[in-house]
Amino acid sequence: MDIAHKFMGPGATKTMWRINENGNVIGTIIVNREGFPETTTLDSLTAATYSNHMRNLSHHASNALKEIDVTDELMILRVVSKKYEAVVAPDKEFHLVVVMRRH
Amino acid sequence: MDIAHKFMGPGATKTMWRINENGNVIGTIIVNREGFPETTTLDSLTAATYSNHMRNLSHHASNALKEIDVTDELMILRVVSKKYEAVVAPDKEFHLVVVMRRH
Repeated sequence: MDIAHKFMGPGATKTMWRINENGNVIGTIIVNREGFPETTTLDSLTAATYSNHMRNLSHHASNALKEIDVTDELMILRVVSKKYEAVVAPDKEFHLVVVMRRH
Repeated sequence: MDIAHKFMGPGATKTMWRINENGNVIGTIIVNREGFPETTTLDSLTAATYSNHMRNLSHHASNALKEIDVTDELMILRVVSKKYEAVVAPDKEFHLVVVMRRH
């Protein structure tokens, strides 16, 4: 959590914990540009796996959108599977990934 | 619409038109395995562009989920951009893509 504090200010960690308090949320991850978890409320392995995949997916989605309309921009990517639901909110420096239980 | 009728029964086209009646929906596309629009309520060029990109994205998402948990399966992929919102519902033979306006 130290890195989050230093680079993103106390607001980032506060937001992560606020999201985490929602009963359906399994965990949140802040992913850096390289696709690695910068800080997370999940265990390291799960965080690393999700970070990598979700960042790649959000890049693919972003590129697809740009090909459809250059002036468009990805805001949210939501992947709903049989077991989980993952939401990616991309930003210039960091991506926020939230992993949730399916209701 | 003929192909949809023949291969998917009248239920498919009915569902497409029902979805289309929603005020926020710009159009629906039924995408085949090869990533081409089988039938659509959009113009051909837009349909072809979305079909290709959304099918690729849903494949990427599906593969990512399988790498996280082999028993998991993609249900819905939702891409929210500044201008539009696209929802992909994948199935064995066809993918349903719905393109919507952002509220």
